[in-house]
Amino acid sequence: MTIDEATIATLDQHDPLRSKRDAFILPEGVIYLDGNSLGPVPKAALRELNIAAKQEWGEQLIRSWNSAGWFDLPATLGDRIARLIGATAGETVVTDTTSVNIYKLIHAGLNLRPGRSVIVAEGASFPSDIYISEGVASVRPDIRIRLEGVDAPRLEELLSDDVAVVLVNHVDYRTGVLRDLATLTSRIHDAGAIVIWDLCHSVGTLRIDLNADGADFAVGCTYKYLNGGPGAPAFVFAARRHHGKLSQPLSGWWGHANPFAFDRSFRAGAGIRPMLCGTQPILSMRALVGALEIWDDVDLDQLRRKSLGLTDLFIALVERGCGRFGVTLVAPRDPAMRGSQISLRHPHGYEIMQALIDRGVIGDFRSPDYMRFGFAPLYLSYADVYAAATILHDILVNDTWRASRFATRAAVT
Amino acid sequence: MTIDEATIATLDQHDPLRSKRDAFILPEGVIYLDGNSLGPVPKAALRELNIAAKQEWGEQLIRSWNSAGWFDLPATLGDRIARLIGATAGETVVTDTTSVNIYKLIHAGLNLRPGRSVIVAEGASFPSDIYISEGVASVRPDIRIRLEGVDAPRLEELLSDDVAVVLVNHVDYRTGVLRDLATLTSRIHDAGAIVIWDLCHSVGTLRIDLNADGADFAVGCTYKYLNGGPGAPAFVFAARRHHGKLSQPLSGWWGHANPFAFDRSFRAGAGIRPMLCGTQPILSMRALVGALEIWDDVDLDQLRRKSLGLTDLFIALVERGCGRFGVTLVAPRDPAMRGSQISLRHPHGYEIMQALIDRGVIGDFRSPDYMRFGFAPLYLSYADVYAAATILHDILVNDTWRASRFATRAAVT
Repeated sequence: MTIDEATIATLDQHDPLRSKRDAFILPEGVIYLDGNSLGPVPKAALRELNIAAKQEWGEQLIRSWNSAGWFDLPATLGDRIARLIGATAGETVVTDTTSVNIYKLIHAGLNLRPGRSVIVAEGASFPSDIYISEGVASVRPDIRIRLEGVDAPRLEELLSDDVAVVLVNHVDYRTGVLRDLATLTSRIHDAGAIVIWDLCHSVGTLRIDLNADGADFAVGCTYKYLNGGPGAPAFVFAARRHHGKLSQPLSGWWGHANPFAFDRSFRAGAGIRPMLCGTQPILSMRALVGALEIWDDVDLDQLRRKSLGLTDLFIALVERGCGRFGVTLVAPRDPAMRGSQISLRHPHGYEIMQALIDRGVIGDFRSPDYMRFGFAPLYLSYADVYAAATILHDILVNDTWRASRFATRAAVT
Repeated sequence: MTIDEATIATLDQHDPLRSKRDAFILPEGVIYLDGNSLGPVPKAALRELNIAAKQEWGEQLIRSWNSAGWFDLPATLGDRIARLIGATAGETVVTDTTSVNIYKLIHAGLNLRPGRSVIVAEGASFPSDIYISEGVASVRPDIRIRLEGVDAPRLEELLSDDVAVVLVNHVDYRTGVLRDLATLTSRIHDAGAIVIWDLCHSVGTLRIDLNADGADFAVGCTYKYLNGGPGAPAFVFAARRHHGKLSQPLSGWWGHANPFAFDRSFRAGAGIRPMLCGTQPILSMRALVGALEIWDDVDLDQLRRKSLGLTDLFIALVERGCGRFGVTLVAPRDPAMRGSQISLRHPHGYEIMQALIDRGVIGDFRSPDYMRFGFAPLYLSYADVYAAATILHDILVNDTWRASRFATRAAVT
């Protein structure tokens, strides 16, 4: 296609999600392509945070544990996320961090597969997945870790009858590559193992069908595409067929069958409850209530179409304008393998990203040379993508990144 | 002493902490004696929460991880708590929940005492301490648990040369009994074990000198007497002499020596850093920044004197007026053994507490028959205590609790 401003305007006019942008507060002069790291503020999140702080905490105080539903928030938030991941009510809770939840789920998976001794993970995944696997292995000397990219090139080759648990990302945090959840789940089950899907970089960008695809467990982040606020608690999914058999060593009082009985010995609660541990940060949870409100009427197929539309456009513009400057496109051309993020590699990726940020185009940088751009369908327009690519082109043409006041590597995040 | 309203007025006039009340928002018509469960709103917490949500998240977005110091919050908040617990800078971090932190510390203690096989805990403690000990034991089949009150009447009798870790509460959540931190630490060290002090019910009511008293590890809550907001993240202390040897299995990327290197294998960070795991709920952390501001100029000896003054007064008033109604005072008369909380037992404690709440006196109830009253020195006056005791007396004299619309046991927290 010929891409000009008229084409872009037409795309935006026909965008069925375009009104969703009004649900967010986006700063003037910024094109925000870092929603894959931290989503922007939903207006409803500010509203709920204000109610939670001033009325619930301020006026009702301790009574809000009942009257404002604080006690049920892990479950009510989980049920709200359920539609986005293809879960039914009672299979998901919001609690703790992704890392802590991965720890719980690896143990829960090992407990479901006694006698098996291997955790399979990805050597190139977000490294916390590996670190937590190592942590589990540190208390379970019978357990070994096998890594894709280290012990074999492809994860599928690591599946044998001693594998208990496979921890795998739906979308890779660095390359944006999307895995086929259904097919890989099926392959893992053929080997008799339990799969834990890490949905951090996919939830909120496409339709996920955990139950239809037979997944066992999943974790995910609420502060990226779900816009729950910095460090908002994570979610945990466990398929109903495993309920009643869930056990994990972070057995805190919130996971107990009757937390307020103050029994002297732990007795796991029903359903998904054993995945809870301690008291959650309610202010952060209440902001998330507002953030999730936005999703209730989002058509997930429209969401995915727009995500692919935005990334298609960015790919086309980068290929047209930036290839000759040493920029390498990492994202898959094949939409079936593409998340909602595009990475570009360049030897001076860090400096180029700083120059972009200087011009109001916010993406981020990941070692050693990845510039990451997230395309959140709810608040980005095709015009945003066009403007961002134009600014990138301009920076490359004019070499402005060399003069960037950020051209040293201080203060990397 | 003769207690009349003139005496009370004099006590309040001479209270050196009385101006601190202005730092809080306290609802009209409420005497809040549940700060041992959830502290009220500090004005500064609302201010900081507002800045965090609207400016840092809203305007600066992802950049706030550096520019607003989000990335350092676990350490900066920990250092702010240090003065309250007798720690030096770099020994404390704020992160995760008390339960999760107890799990980390028990493992860290076991790792410091290889070859020893026993965790000692309290049979009557807040049960999550026991549940988490059970969780640790579930992954460490070589480890056994011994409980005070079950395996021996007194904790000291359980200390033998196979004990690795002792988990003990500074103040009991139900009875309000205060342990002698220095003496018990010394006894535990005589037995060669590591002590973990749970400070949830003591921090913010008296001077704590973890280093002077030789403590190894501690955890504590920030949403009770520290007023950080519902479910605000907990703190972890590890004495400097153990730094460099700290290991625990929740080895997430925040505990790594260089989180943004994205190394493929975990390498523990320096100092207290290995106690961190994943990304924290920043909105809740930022409210806590405001809440802790109030403490910077608080004289901890004045704090303790007022705490004992308030509880002395409540004890005297209850003994004078309520004894004949079947109310049993649980709190120790001996100030050296008393925290900042008084519990009263009564066969109809639940109904009486509901009648109190109906009249604006908010305490709470713990199974089977404990009415708990917390006396937070920063925002309570002697007049508050007098009014609360008067209302309690009135309820008992007139039997109004029998008619309370809450006299069924629905919706217990």
